[in-house]
Amino acid sequence: MAQKGDLLSVRQDIRVVDATIRDGGLCNNFRFDDKFIKDLYQANVKAGVDYMEFGYKASKEIFNEDDFGKWKFCNDSDIRKIVGDNKTGLKIAVMADVGRTDFQKDIIPKKDSPIDLVRIATYINTIPAAVEMIENCAKKGYETTINIMAVSKANTDDIKTALDILGQSPVNAFYIVDSYGALYPEQSRKLANLYCEYADKYGKSVGIHAHNNQQLAFANTIEAMTQGVSYLDATVDGMGRGAGNCALELLLGFLKNPKYKVAPILKIIEEHTEKLKAEGVKWGYDIPYMLTGQLNTHPRPAISYVKEDRKDYSKFANELYDIINS
Amino acid sequence: MAQKGDLLSVRQDIRVVDATIRDGGLCNNFRFDDKFIKDLYQANVKAGVDYMEFGYKASKEIFNEDDFGKWKFCNDSDIRKIVGDNKTGLKIAVMADVGRTDFQKDIIPKKDSPIDLVRIATYINTIPAAVEMIENCAKKGYETTINIMAVSKANTDDIKTALDILGQSPVNAFYIVDSYGALYPEQSRKLANLYCEYADKYGKSVGIHAHNNQQLAFANTIEAMTQGVSYLDATVDGMGRGAGNCALELLLGFLKNPKYKVAPILKIIEEHTEKLKAEGVKWGYDIPYMLTGQLNTHPRPAISYVKEDRKDYSKFANELYDIINS
Repeated sequence: MAQKGDLLSVRQDIRVVDATIRDGGLCNNFRFDDKFIKDLYQANVKAGVDYMEFGYKASKEIFNEDDFGKWKFCNDSDIRKIVGDNKTGLKIAVMADVGRTDFQKDIIPKKDSPIDLVRIATYINTIPAAVEMIENCAKKGYETTINIMAVSKANTDDIKTALDILGQSPVNAFYIVDSYGALYPEQSRKLANLYCEYADKYGKSVGIHAHNNQQLAFANTIEAMTQGVSYLDATVDGMGRGAGNCALELLLGFLKNPKYKVAPILKIIEEHTEKLKAEGVKWGYDIPYMLTGQLNTHPRPAISYVKEDRKDYSKFANELYDIINS
Repeated sequence: MAQKGDLLSVRQDIRVVDATIRDGGLCNNFRFDDKFIKDLYQANVKAGVDYMEFGYKASKEIFNEDDFGKWKFCNDSDIRKIVGDNKTGLKIAVMADVGRTDFQKDIIPKKDSPIDLVRIATYINTIPAAVEMIENCAKKGYETTINIMAVSKANTDDIKTALDILGQSPVNAFYIVDSYGALYPEQSRKLANLYCEYADKYGKSVGIHAHNNQQLAFANTIEAMTQGVSYLDATVDGMGRGAGNCALELLLGFLKNPKYKVAPILKIIEEHTEKLKAEGVKWGYDIPYMLTGQLNTHPRPAISYVKEDRKDYSKFANELYDIINS
């Protein structure tokens, strides 16, 4: 596929999606103070960000509300307290996990909600359940995306089958999700090509959500973009589970559309995310995450390792081989 | 140019160059203890690294020996104390700056030296002086590379002229040096293509030395590699001036040649570089370096800023615009 745009051009199809609260919430159980959320919302508006994801619409049957901050559940009333009627250019997104969202009850008709976009997260083996959610949310008036996680482990034939099924649903965009931070840029370009081929066939868009285990989240994002991917996930200071995500400040500095500004995001870093780090909330590139990325496996063992403040990396590398092969 | 090799293949032309002491020395004035150097040397041998750069051959007329650790000057006797007769597969490199090296005197005939490779660092406007050094060193029996710095600021026509001149010299490899950490992967691939075209014409190799201002050092290195670049610079823990370099542990984990091992480098991180950081030696990705990278400018103001421990990033971003435009 030919490259779309170049380093000096503006691509009108680009949509920057700030996933700080949702993916970052995985680092602190969604316990953000309201000032952070409000400041981030206003910064995103000023920075020209297209979507801000507030968190998950998690099932209150499955998760205990006392165990998490409110952005695990994203009650419409809580979002409303931050955004009012949201008379801005910034759209509001939430994530809904297949099998862990009471979407029938908790996702109300769009006309009564501040939410614009429901991002449906699935593994490749639960696509039919995801389609049910897409149809339900689309019927209620929402934009939807389908975020197929752990794509670095998925079989290409399965991806093609999934995209053919999803192409016939009302979903707006297919997302490449590199949950393990295992993809290299040449793989990102290849996957982007494949997704874009199906997207073109069905009149959909394509997005990417990258993890920074190998310091490639930003690279994979902009390289997928060159192939036609237009929904670009990023988080302030790269905040997100484990090694974190593509940093929003890197992405906004790269994009040439003058509507995008870095300065409001720098303010959030100096006023909020640096403080979170000082308080002990951990994320970002680190050797244990690098190792799970290199091995194309879930960051779970690395997250435990980092929590324990161990620094015996070579021992951990050995343990990892055992964990993976057991 | 067609991609050379793929993610599963071994490229026999690849040469991994550990530049930890030389570029990392810019963070601590080359004041490493001998144990670090010895441990790193042995780790590089075990890890299958092809070259280890010990530091600069800096002029003692220009620089005061008391102001720096010994690896600023790389006396042959000091290297010999670490490597003995170096009966290993690891070759020894030093860097020699154009205009700041007494190469006639300080670089002795190869047969009497533990050094294998002299890397000649130049800006694009001092190529004739660089050629004089290449010829001198080659005549003495050394391998040489030419490291053209700040390539993100160089004019493509000038690069072509330079490569035509250098092609006719006895230099072994042309290096792409992204001193400002300003290149994006698509630019790295384009430059790699250009350099490889000239290298093929003159029977030379091509190398890359990347900086991590935009978290792209590793990505730019492996993307240039796909185009035929074979000398790949990296440093342990990414240690290097400002935002640092491509991390050696990332690169070794990526390469498929079974001779390359990550574990010995993990040991160096846990035993040495983490300690250096704890002692206050600073390097690695940080917002001020990101900003100089985005603006394609020398990291000097960012280095001062980081030294002062300031955290008012948005103010610094404003100051930078003034510094650059003054």
